[in-house]
Amino acid sequence: MNLNFPLLDRPIKISDGTLFVVEDVRVFSSVVQNFYQYEEATDLKLFDDKFQALKSSELMLITDILGFDVNSPTVLKLIYADLENQLNEKPEVKSMIDKLTSTISELIGYELLEHELDLEGDEITILELFKALGIKIETQSDTIFEKLMEILQVYKYLSKKKLLVLINICSYLTKTEIVEILEYISLNNVEVLIVEPRRVDGCIQYILDEDYFLSTEDLV
Amino acid sequence: MNLNFPLLDRPIKISDGTLFVVEDVRVFSSVVQNFYQYEEATDLKLFDDKFQALKSSELMLITDILGFDVNSPTVLKLIYADLENQLNEKPEVKSMIDKLTSTISELIGYELLEHELDLEGDEITILELFKALGIKIETQSDTIFEKLMEILQVYKYLSKKKLLVLINICSYLTKTEIVEILEYISLNNVEVLIVEPRRVDGCIQYILDEDYFLSTEDLV
Amino acid sequence: MNLNFPLLDRPIKISDGTLFVVEDVRVFSSVVQNFYQYEEATDLKLFDDKFQALKSSELMLITDILGFDVNSPTVLKLIYADLENQLNEKPEVKSMIDKLTSTISELIGYELLEHELDLEGDEITILELFKALGIKIETQSDTIFEKLMEILQVYKYLSKKKLLVLINICSYLTKTEIVEILEYISLNNVEVLIVEPRRVDGCIQYILDEDYFLSTEDLV
Amino acid sequence: MNLNFPLLDRPIKISDGTLFVVEDVRVFSSVVQNFYQYEEATDLKLFDDKFQALKSSELMLITDILGFDVNSPTVLKLIYADLENQLNEKPEVKSMIDKLTSTISELIGYELLEHELDLEGDEITILELFKALGIKIETQSDTIFEKLMEILQVYKYLSKKKLLVLINICSYLTKTEIVEILEYISLNNVEVLIVEPRRVDGCIQYILDEDYFLSTEDLV
Repeated sequence: MNLNFPLLDRPIKISDGTLFVVEDVRVFSSVVQNFYQYEEATDLKLFDDKFQALKSSELMLITDILGFDVNSPTVLKLIYADLENQLNEKPEVKSMIDKLTSTISELIGYELLEHELDLEGDEITILELFKALGIKIETQSDTIFEKLMEILQVYKYLSKKKLLVLINICSYLTKTEIVEILEYISLNNVEVLIVEPRRVDGCIQYILDEDYFLSTEDLV
Repeated sequence: MNLNFPLLDRPIKISDGTLFVVEDVRVFSSVVQNFYQYEEATDLKLFDDKFQALKSSELMLITDILGFDVNSPTVLKLIYADLENQLNEKPEVKSMIDKLTSTISELIGYELLEHELDLEGDEITILELFKALGIKIETQSDTIFEKLMEILQVYKYLSKKKLLVLINICSYLTKTEIVEILEYISLNNVEVLIVEPRRVDGCIQYILDEDYFLSTEDLV
Repeated sequence: MNLNFPLLDRPIKISDGTLFVVEDVRVFSSVVQNFYQYEEATDLKLFDDKFQALKSSELMLITDILGFDVNSPTVLKLIYADLENQLNEKPEVKSMIDKLTSTISELIGYELLEHELDLEGDEITILELFKALGIKIETQSDTIFEKLMEILQVYKYLSKKKLLVLINICSYLTKTEIVEILEYISLNNVEVLIVEPRRVDGCIQYILDEDYFLSTEDLV
Repeated sequence: MNLNFPLLDRPIKISDGTLFVVEDVRVFSSVVQNFYQYEEATDLKLFDDKFQALKSSELMLITDILGFDVNSPTVLKLIYADLENQLNEKPEVKSMIDKLTSTISELIGYELLEHELDLEGDEITILELFKALGIKIETQSDTIFEKLMEILQVYKYLSKKKLLVLINICSYLTKTEIVEILEYISLNNVEVLIVEPRRVDGCIQYILDEDYFLSTEDLV
């Protein structure tokens, strides 16, 4: 994926884990706003190597890590499908669960017969079990770093999203955590752009300085 | 409960299963409409033996047997509570179901641990089991008579409803079925008023004839 | 449109205002139920002269005149479009309303400017005026006959509905009213089937008697 | 309002526009998270001068300026009430608008009479006019600074909110803008806490440094 806007002389190439620092406050503020209004924005462009523009539905923009709900219905649906596949690969566990739910259905079935109303029930599916168990990503005890790692894992699931943009997250992270996150992104080979208002020590990064001059800071 | 409106010389006493025939089409039509707009209606009065008016929320009016949804959320909640009590009286069945669901939770718990995301789940309650089983009153295969019997059973459950009024139902029922319904109502000691446009053979009934004269037809 | 089910020797032809009397209670009850479950029903068939089956979405079935909401969102949308066309044919009235709403917008616009917040507003459209005026079909004061006439008028609007079936309505109507309704249906040339449990004096009608024999009663 | 948590030796007094800088990343991150989970949080305390704890419903926390919807139903309701009062103070404008809407109602009333259905409509109220005009706070063209100013104005409206906490906003603002915002807060005498990860030049601020030592930086 590539990023461009009028102040840049040439597009920035976004690969897995690209850090982009915008030092001028006004420019930073306006870039963030353009990401927010992406699609309507005429100034900020995101496009792949074939110059195909990124659809706004393909962009996952996170400006509020703590406010982001990782347990959205879409994500839960994907997780449940995942768990179902995981179970299908263990026929002996699957069949044991099936037997147990059948026995429960049968036991409750007798109770239905005893009731004065003409009651009916269907089978319990694996998905209904997951729902009844309230399975979801644990987030209550998360630190901001852990929440971010979960967002990255969830992003991998969301196959319709082609670019994850994280805004102003480094204030919440220690250097070790930033490095760990960039490594995770790189290992998983997903496209992530991190937009920051200040240089981040010890990381490869694009820097647009206060004179609108773009440089790349490499590690020595 | 008692029923009164201007054309009646004296109130009609509604006990368990009172049949009220209104032979004049205009009067029948207007009585039905007054039931429909009960509370706002100034003409039609429903009141108990202490002259306390029936609240509109205490009236269960059915003009459309087939359209009536017996599986309303309120009814299902009551049925589930009922089934739970029924189970509580059989500690050995209850504890067996508990053990089975615990085993299921445990088995799925292992799968959660194996998943790359940090997943959590809670216990499955009996109510969640009922929901997963989709327990409800069987109605698909019902005849109109069976549906009506179920409405009567559901009415018994709805403790906030103090009077059930059924409009124009006898066209759908054979004489045997009408008798059976009246017997069921009487046995269960619930207050039900059936309003009809035509005399029903072989039943005790109040008749308001075309001259607005009220008579009672008893069985010989 | 044509109606058929196993007990009939030949299909019944439904034209504008066909009255169909089913004298046997069990058959009447079952026919009504089949209309209710139309589509899933294997027994009752509705089809046009090219043997094309009526879709369930094309059937408008009314078993509960008083409960039927004539002011559904679909109907209101059609009425508003109608009124808008009506206005478009009177350019002088239309332009006067436009001028009046412009003046209102302008007056309120000045108030927006005076407010400390940066407020904005758009134009008022004719549809927004209709909505603000709460335009709808008057039903509160209706008798059952008037409500039925309104249902017939609304049915004409609903171009997707190809057959209106009215169940057991004659108990609520005087003979004059029944005749008036049949005349209205005939004049408007819409397909309506009225299913009744008892013969209706003075009307052309199909009668399926208690021996399952189908006859036609014509006016002399 | 006062803020306290274990690392502080003494509570911080929040008056109109208090800037609180937390230089240690881990502490900053944890303080922000505690604000997010306020109420459940046992560590972070907010309380008034009578040691009365702030209810979570009284806290307005903003971590995502661009994502915050200023045009919530509550805010719009308050704005509409405001505009209505504003109009009530100008009887001549109010009465002119009333006359104009009456004329519109009358004109459309004639159209209703001409329609074949029995249509009815009510009066247009001032609130319905505001709604039809789609009156709301203009935000589309806002910069982040303007959006923030609007959030501050909206906060003044929300009388149930007793403390506004803004997280990590200074990266988006020039020094002039920060000063302007603090002046606006001070002039309007509202309680606002701004929590930042870095010192802000030229502002009075509390600083919790990396050795957990709290100091106050005053202007010289």
